[in-house]
Amino acid sequence: MKKVAVIMGSDSDLPVVKPALKQLKDLGIPFEARVMSAHRTPTAAADFAKSAIDNGFGAIICAAGKAAHLAGAFAANTVLPVIGIPVKSSTLDGLDALLSTVQMPAGMPVATVAIDGAQNAALLAAQMIALSDCQLQSKLSQMRSDMSQAVALKDEKLQTLLEEI
Amino acid sequence: MKKVAVIMGSDSDLPVVKPALKQLKDLGIPFEARVMSAHRTPTAAADFAKSAIDNGFGAIICAAGKAAHLAGAFAANTVLPVIGIPVKSSTLDGLDALLSTVQMPAGMPVATVAIDGAQNAALLAAQMIALSDCQLQSKLSQMRSDMSQAVALKDEKLQTLLEEI
Amino acid sequence: MKKVAVIMGSDSDLPVVKPALKQLKDLGIPFEARVMSAHRTPTAAADFAKSAIDNGFGAIICAAGKAAHLAGAFAANTVLPVIGIPVKSSTLDGLDALLSTVQMPAGMPVATVAIDGAQNAALLAAQMIALSDCQLQSKLSQMRSDMSQAVALKDEKLQTLLEEI
Amino acid sequence: MKKVAVIMGSDSDLPVVKPALKQLKDLGIPFEARVMSAHRTPTAAADFAKSAIDNGFGAIICAAGKAAHLAGAFAANTVLPVIGIPVKSSTLDGLDALLSTVQMPAGMPVATVAIDGAQNAALLAAQMIALSDCQLQSKLSQMRSDMSQAVALKDEKLQTLLEEI
Amino acid sequence: MKKVAVIMGSDSDLPVVKPALKQLKDLGIPFEARVMSAHRTPTAAADFAKSAIDNGFGAIICAAGKAAHLAGAFAANTVLPVIGIPVKSSTLDGLDALLSTVQMPAGMPVATVAIDGAQNAALLAAQMIALSDCQLQSKLSQMRSDMSQAVALKDEKLQTLLEEI
Amino acid sequence: MKKVAVIMGSDSDLPVVKPALKQLKDLGIPFEARVMSAHRTPTAAADFAKSAIDNGFGAIICAAGKAAHLAGAFAANTVLPVIGIPVKSSTLDGLDALLSTVQMPAGMPVATVAIDGAQNAALLAAQMIALSDCQLQSKLSQMRSDMSQAVALKDEKLQTLLEEI
Amino acid sequence: MKKVAVIMGSDSDLPVVKPALKQLKDLGIPFEARVMSAHRTPTAAADFAKSAIDNGFGAIICAAGKAAHLAGAFAANTVLPVIGIPVKSSTLDGLDALLSTVQMPAGMPVATVAIDGAQNAALLAAQMIALSDCQLQSKLSQMRSDMSQAVALKDEKLQTLLEEI
Amino acid sequence: MKKVAVIMGSDSDLPVVKPALKQLKDLGIPFEARVMSAHRTPTAAADFAKSAIDNGFGAIICAAGKAAHLAGAFAANTVLPVIGIPVKSSTLDGLDALLSTVQMPAGMPVATVAIDGAQNAALLAAQMIALSDCQLQSKLSQMRSDMSQAVALKDEKLQTLLEEI
Repeated sequence: MKKVAVIMGSDSDLPVVKPALKQLKDLGIPFEARVMSAHRTPTAAADFAKSAIDNGFGAIICAAGKAAHLAGAFAANTVLPVIGIPVKSSTLDGLDALLSTVQMPAGMPVATVAIDGAQNAALLAAQMIALSDCQLQSKLSQMRSDMSQAVALKDEKLQTLLEEI
Repeated sequence: MKKVAVIMGSDSDLPVVKPALKQLKDLGIPFEARVMSAHRTPTAAADFAKSAIDNGFGAIICAAGKAAHLAGAFAANTVLPVIGIPVKSSTLDGLDALLSTVQMPAGMPVATVAIDGAQNAALLAAQMIALSDCQLQSKLSQMRSDMSQAVALKDEKLQTLLEEI
Repeated sequence: MKKVAVIMGSDSDLPVVKPALKQLKDLGIPFEARVMSAHRTPTAAADFAKSAIDNGFGAIICAAGKAAHLAGAFAANTVLPVIGIPVKSSTLDGLDALLSTVQMPAGMPVATVAIDGAQNAALLAAQMIALSDCQLQSKLSQMRSDMSQAVALKDEKLQTLLEEI
Repeated sequence: MKKVAVIMGSDSDLPVVKPALKQLKDLGIPFEARVMSAHRTPTAAADFAKSAIDNGFGAIICAAGKAAHLAGAFAANTVLPVIGIPVKSSTLDGLDALLSTVQMPAGMPVATVAIDGAQNAALLAAQMIALSDCQLQSKLSQMRSDMSQAVALKDEKLQTLLEEI
Repeated sequence: MKKVAVIMGSDSDLPVVKPALKQLKDLGIPFEARVMSAHRTPTAAADFAKSAIDNGFGAIICAAGKAAHLAGAFAANTVLPVIGIPVKSSTLDGLDALLSTVQMPAGMPVATVAIDGAQNAALLAAQMIALSDCQLQSKLSQMRSDMSQAVALKDEKLQTLLEEI
Repeated sequence: MKKVAVIMGSDSDLPVVKPALKQLKDLGIPFEARVMSAHRTPTAAADFAKSAIDNGFGAIICAAGKAAHLAGAFAANTVLPVIGIPVKSSTLDGLDALLSTVQMPAGMPVATVAIDGAQNAALLAAQMIALSDCQLQSKLSQMRSDMSQAVALKDEKLQTLLEEI
Repeated sequence: MKKVAVIMGSDSDLPVVKPALKQLKDLGIPFEARVMSAHRTPTAAADFAKSAIDNGFGAIICAAGKAAHLAGAFAANTVLPVIGIPVKSSTLDGLDALLSTVQMPAGMPVATVAIDGAQNAALLAAQMIALSDCQLQSKLSQMRSDMSQAVALKDEKLQTLLEEI
Repeated sequence: MKKVAVIMGSDSDLPVVKPALKQLKDLGIPFEARVMSAHRTPTAAADFAKSAIDNGFGAIICAAGKAAHLAGAFAANTVLPVIGIPVKSSTLDGLDALLSTVQMPAGMPVATVAIDGAQNAALLAAQMIALSDCQLQSKLSQMRSDMSQAVALKDEKLQTLLEEI
């Protein structure tokens, strides 16, 4: 199975990125997690991106805050799908990271998920890999059924809570 | 090869969506373009999404403006990757469509591209399909070289323009 | 008397939604509170909406955060008035939910109240039901007098607080 | 049948408001359209609101731009449902009017529709009146079928347009 | 000397408004502080505004949050200068109150100060009253000298703090 | 009667500022209009502000766009009331000028009006001067009656327009 | 004298960038203008940045729109001062480019000027180079005097225009 | 070596500004830190700016919040490069300070860094001074290598943390 790379701009982003790693692990998708920076280690980042296809990756997830160039820097150096997680930092509530990640120029797509939306980034990578992996696609479908049932259970539980209102 | 579905919320979105269709055509990727609405034809949209895997689709592109629920409505009914194009409408410069498309809750990813970023939506779909299609991946790499050369040509042309300044 | 449905996208929205439930209870308006999701349980949501008129509902209140499609998903499946409460979540201060709820396309209105404005959602539902229920309309008018008097009392109390300044 | 009041803050708002008037006319709902201002004619506005129930109104639609207080001023003086249309003016793309209309304090709901969303304001009023008027409710349901079919027609038409791409 | 009215939409606004009251007291300007609401006590508010000139007021300060109509409601009923303090509430960081206060339509000015800028509202009122009161104008000038000297002192103190860096 | 100074940061602001000049002329208030810049002619601006009281001014209106420091620069050098008009320029729809004008630090108020709200700036100045000029205050009251009647006339005219809908 | 590099992400940015080129020419500062892209020609851009000091450059100006990574990509590869011009594109009024340019992470400064503020970018570069070039510093001081006089002339001209009002 | 001036609008800005002072100290760049205010001590600020070149300064860093005019006020009085740090205050998350600092009019550049981006302001000043100081330029290059290695170390450390996920 193709691997997923999960790149974070700083190790301080790990708490935000963790749900992506957990989700990939739960789905049995092999992944590699790395700290790399578009600005502090641009060569390492470019090299990683350029060799990602040959190294067996199927998708690259990049998480970064503020003027978040990380996903774009990877997208510029590979034709693998690159998924961007805009990370909320201490000012502007993540709007800066969202716009820096999603407003990519023509020719260089970044598949952007919600601010701090790490789990969805992992699921998106999984959906891509599942295009040629029926078993994974079944797992994803099963997850949907589980989510649906979880909502139904919460709905039931709500009925008991309502008596207190 | 897997097909790409390109859904627009209204036929008035066609001018915005056209670059996606052209890009898919140029890459030789089979596609189906449809007008469907999350709100006006919710059942048709859900049915399309539910049967999209069986119907040979590999990715679904959804373009919508304002409170843009279209991509989310498709994402809710399939585990195929869904790509959202937020469309700028007459007010708020597309910010409403962007936030309505990208800020999806956990479990339901939408791969969001830039406001009116139709070409990138097509390229993202192509990158996904290319995960199991080396020839398409080569075409995408070739496009990158072409883009790079086009910039170099513009750079040359600029030098001649500078004399007038 | 017609019932009011109060739908929340997640049970974590209950603290925000509670003032709506309390207000309905105080006014003696029968209500049903449910956890349903536009994305996780789209079929259940659509079915609920489609049968809401026949099941004796007069208005549907939907509370959701982020890319808040819940109210729109209900509005798409019923001609009952649908009231949307945009819920503030961890980023963007509720602006995403507000725009996703209020910027509905032509033909599909959602009556949107303030971010986290649950009590007003209940009052709006009550005002609608009161159109054919004079007694309820009197209760609402009485509430206004009470609110007015409460302000007058606060005004009096303020005068005593001013001495400390 | 109860009447709908359509209030605009200035006669320059008429082009924005017209779709509401047309929609009400099409549905056969009696309406009264007025120019009134929260700031220039506050007494007239308050008097209109206070006597609206006795004068046979079932809902009040208010359209205003900038620091749009009109809907709030009406809501303060009646327990009829008040629907607010935020009108886009020459700056800020309608965001000022949207926030001024929707962010009402507890106890004073305004049912807010999209910026310049006049048709939806009329439909919302119709949905409210239809709570005690089955025939009107049927008309609204019929409109939905028509809208759904219109989308299907546009979808068909799109297929012919695709050949040119 | 003319009095200043300080109106707050709710007694919960008192902590924000207090600096205005203290500033007026420090300057020896007589003031009256009141809780009044544009929506809950519209008649009382209008009556206060209409009789404010006759009752010896020279300026009216209004503090309100969210869809802050308070200052506008007073401005609509008097030709005294009305000063608006937009109050930050639980969402949107005060932007809603700012736009609702400052974006008044032509003919109805509200002199808006910064979000939560109560002290400046008082100073602005003082500057207006000082137009016909040389002694008060001298006090205001003296305050400026004091502020200037306070900055100089802080500048001196900073030099001692710098050694620790 | 005290004069009003109307300062604009650039002569290109004249079209925006004109309604202020016309309003002052209509009210018979003497005024002086000047082009001065907080950044290009800071000394001239400071000197004007410092001597404004002695030169018989009662209020200073400042209009500027972008990082609009003009009103603040005047406020820093006088205790006369300073009124700021944020001017919309080619980007950001005037939000930059609004925030740069209104968010003044404690101790230095600027009475801010709406973006491009020149007429209201003049009216605000007039209201201040009218504090010690009953005749002017009467004129302002009369204007209000006229505005009220103008709305009533527009309301009448609207009735005739409605037949076409 | 050290040269200034002026990089634009696309030749379509030339109209926005031209005032920078003109300003540099007027000041007699040698410059090189290039089309390079952070995403389309990342290697060329990095190479240019890495050798910029050795090639005699003293500052690098980068102009880009949308998710504007250009200035950051240069800043990552040189310790020369990099000046960023956020370029307004078809959506969001330049806010995306501004945030993508200015919100750089610690360690990687970009000196950001106003949206479309090309002339100021050139002046900033000139100010940097002038640190070791007294003659250039004198030219810049002279420009200031000229600007100041130009304002004075506009002020005079305004007086003649006022008669028409 | 030329000195750097670090000006803060208030001593309460010291915690935000400290990283700039530390960075300058670490690089061995002489600096002077001052509390000065564009509004409270405008003359002192202007005098400082006017004599800054003669007093041996090479760059001026200004940190201020809200309607942050400080950097602009310095820029207006010197042709030294002025670097602005927009400081986040209690409302609007620093957006007001950012726009007030960066959106400077033509002719008066302010080199703006990220909200609360003090360290980068110091580095930018250092880059400017290093234009004529090879040793400082080497230090800055060394810092980049160190930063790059720090990322590599964090990357290694991350690998050990991953086992816990």
